Amino acid sequence: MGHPLRLGIAGLGTVGVGLINLLRQNQESIEARCGRSMEIVAVSARNRSRDRGIDVSAYEWYDDCAELARNAEIDVFVELIGGEDGPAKAAVEAALASGRHVVTANKALLAYHGTELARSAEAAGVALNFEAAVAGGIPIVKTMRESFAGNRATRIYGILNGTCNYILTCMEQEGADFDVVLKRAQDLGYAEADPTFDIGGFDAAHKLALLTSLAFGTEVDFSSVYVEGIERITAQDIQVAGELGYKIKLLGVAQDTGAGIEQRVHPTLVPAKSPIADVDGVFNAVAVTGDFLGDLMLEGQGAGAGATASSVAADIVDIALGNIQAPLGRPTKHLTPYKPAPMRAHAGGYYVALEVQDRPGAFAGIATRMAEQDISLKSIVQRAPEISVDIDGAKDASVAETRPVVLITHDTLEKSIRKALECIESDGAITSAPRMIRIERL
Amino acid sequence: MGHPLRLGIAGLGTVGVGLINLLRQNQESIEARCGRSMEIVAVSARNRSRDRGIDVSAYEWYDDCAELARNAEIDVFVELIGGEDGPAKAAVEAALASGRHVVTANKALLAYHGTELARSAEAAGVALNFEAAVAGGIPIVKTMRESFAGNRATRIYGILNGTCNYILTCMEQEGADFDVVLKRAQDLGYAEADPTFDIGGFDAAHKLALLTSLAFGTEVDFSSVYVEGIERITAQDIQVAGELGYKIKLLGVAQDTGAGIEQRVHPTLVPAKSPIADVDGVFNAVAVTGDFLGDLMLEGQGAGAGATASSVAADIVDIALGNIQAPLGRPTKHLTPYKPAPMRAHAGGYYVALEVQDRPGAFAGIATRMAEQDISLKSIVQRAPEISVDIDGAKDASVAETRPVVLITHDTLEKSIRKALECIESDGAITSAPRMIRIERL
Repeated sequence: MGHPLRLGIAGLGTVGVGLINLLRQNQESIEARCGRSMEIVAVSARNRSRDRGIDVSAYEWYDDCAELARNAEIDVFVELIGGEDGPAKAAVEAALASGRHVVTANKALLAYHGTELARSAEAAGVALNFEAAVAGGIPIVKTMRESFAGNRATRIYGILNGTCNYILTCMEQEGADFDVVLKRAQDLGYAEADPTFDIGGFDAAHKLALLTSLAFGTEVDFSSVYVEGIERITAQDIQVAGELGYKIKLLGVAQDTGAGIEQRVHPTLVPAKSPIADVDGVFNAVAVTGDFLGDLMLEGQGAGAGATASSVAADIVDIALGNIQAPLGRPTKHLTPYKPAPMRAHAGGYYVALEVQDRPGAFAGIATRMAEQDISLKSIVQRAPEISVDIDGAKDASVAETRPVVLITHDTLEKSIRKALECIESDGAITSAPRMIRIERL
Repeated sequence: MGHPLRLGIAGLGTVGVGLINLLRQNQESIEARCGRSMEIVAVSARNRSRDRGIDVSAYEWYDDCAELARNAEIDVFVELIGGEDGPAKAAVEAALASGRHVVTANKALLAYHGTELARSAEAAGVALNFEAAVAGGIPIVKTMRESFAGNRATRIYGILNGTCNYILTCMEQEGADFDVVLKRAQDLGYAEADPTFDIGGFDAAHKLALLTSLAFGTEVDFSSVYVEGIERITAQDIQVAGELGYKIKLLGVAQDTGAGIEQRVHPTLVPAKSPIADVDGVFNAVAVTGDFLGDLMLEGQGAGAGATASSVAADIVDIALGNIQAPLGRPTKHLTPYKPAPMRAHAGGYYVALEVQDRPGAFAGIATRMAEQDISLKSIVQRAPEISVDIDGAKDASVAETRPVVLITHDTLEKSIRKALECIESDGAITSAPRMIRIERL
């Protein structure tokens, strides 16, 4: 039996408590695998007196997590605090500077400072493991770092935020509107009181920035991620997409276009028959294509105490077994600067939803604007207007005079569709701002 | 740059050639990851003069693969020959005895001799890596060995044979019969001239034996796997199952029942809405449930030169980086003997197809036999008989007098359903042997 691996855990929220439970409950089998024991020696959290449902009094307590990272007698600093700066960053930097291995679930920290922290870990000869930072229990970091090593990636994409996927799944299954489902998700604890970070796509963007680096061997560049949230998706979008053979998912996609690498998070029409279309509710999935591997998809729980603790534990076991790998899959000196492919050059199909005035020539004008940009149409869905009738029985003129029209384009350029929609809007034949959703070929 | 990792490759079929292509094509990025080069120094195959589409004249040639394993100046012996005994076994044993790392895609060898070979590798302090032996490009071996380390498994199951999945998918999509689709699969090269090994479930059983060991920490015990192939599945089974909300897949399942571990490969009704139901064609998938992780599923290409070479390459990269793990996920001394749960004690639902004589009381007799075994029925599908009419317009009496009946049972024991079907058969109210397909709760 080797000497025990000594752990210091900063952050005792659901994941921290889940990790302690895991290490206690499965202690015997973990020690059998590692040939050494795991010993939690120190912990840190904001509030010492909070009832966490477990007894942590046997562990040395630190009010300051950076002090724990620096001074406690530990081999591994486990950072479960969160946040891209502040105490988490200070503590991780302190741990690396002191030659301690780091395991973290902090996607924001790595999205902003991943390359720099990887460099520090490398210089110190220690691990910086972050399996839990991307897609919870899904072992996509290890898969990309290690199993994918023989391949060149062409694309990596995924459903990276369970809150958004839960909301879109409910909207689809119930025909309900966004606001209604968001409210319920908040009541159930699946969405935060301020949901912007999730539904705006930023959480998914943090994770995508890490996947991009792992897949393409580039420096982490969160600032270049194009981000669009799900706030403007309507029940009707989901219904019409369904009729046309698509589902709507919030995808994070990183793709080598030849001219650079696109990093984008946005609502996406995916073919209903593609494997990722069936990933419902709070589940996450990541799919990657390699030149030799072909297509691979991993699906599992993207959040939750157990699944996240499982990934943190695997990272710790790797350290216990001496499996210390370059944090981003290759030495930082071999990472190339991220070269963005601008969104205006993005090529793909588009779903376009318009409220068109119900008068002769209105649709002809729209079709002309599309043609001017060399955009050809694959499908046109025109609905009878929903005529609302007021209490006197008279038609509500403002509603009756428009028709919802949905266009599906063949592949075109983002700048072309944007230009066409700009012209259509200024022509005045539509009554509200046009909305478009990108289509992903899977 | 560290010293080169020297490889000897035995077996130059599609996977061997795929590996050489991969190592050449992605040499630069692999070397960047590893900080050292990969150098193929020796190869071995049955036929030196065969045209393989690549030039292997730069590599030292061995007619005898065991001699290569023993005498060539190599660090890693890559075994791509196949077969549970014979030259592959002799060569792998020679490599381990000579202190060389081994990477193999040989599921049969490991299914029969996995524990013993793991012990030899451990004694020699070398790697025995076999990612390519289970589910081709899907990194399930690494996932179970490393990412799953913090968990206790309750069940692992998968679609482990692409030939069977291709045949079942075609039967479902076309309503075609088994023989027709098998013939086409053979013509397309998806099935061997003698297809028994695949369609009989034996290939899947080899892989399942390895997954069981990785998931439950038991010694590899292929001989205990219950195996049933897909030969008796009819187009009608697939159609009726579909009407009842199921698809039929050949699954390999290992499950801890409390009394032991079931290992079984058989055609299975899976809920049409379960993620594995959508894994179609030649794709493979493996799903595992852990006490902390929850459910995880990996889906990808289960065979083919590129995907298999990708897994072999990842195993080699692990060795290059010094990541040498216990072959079966924990030291062999910590593996427990496999304790089988007998199939007669298997609990689950059943699909039962009967050809029932069209006379009063026939069905009542069947229902009574089920009731005697405490089996309750969930669904009964009785079809109008297919009346075939001969050229004179007379009914074909032998056909008109039976009715196909399908029963879906609630959970019961395998011994109960077997006993009930035995009684039903000896009662003489059915005109051909009853057939049953297990239902998996997913």
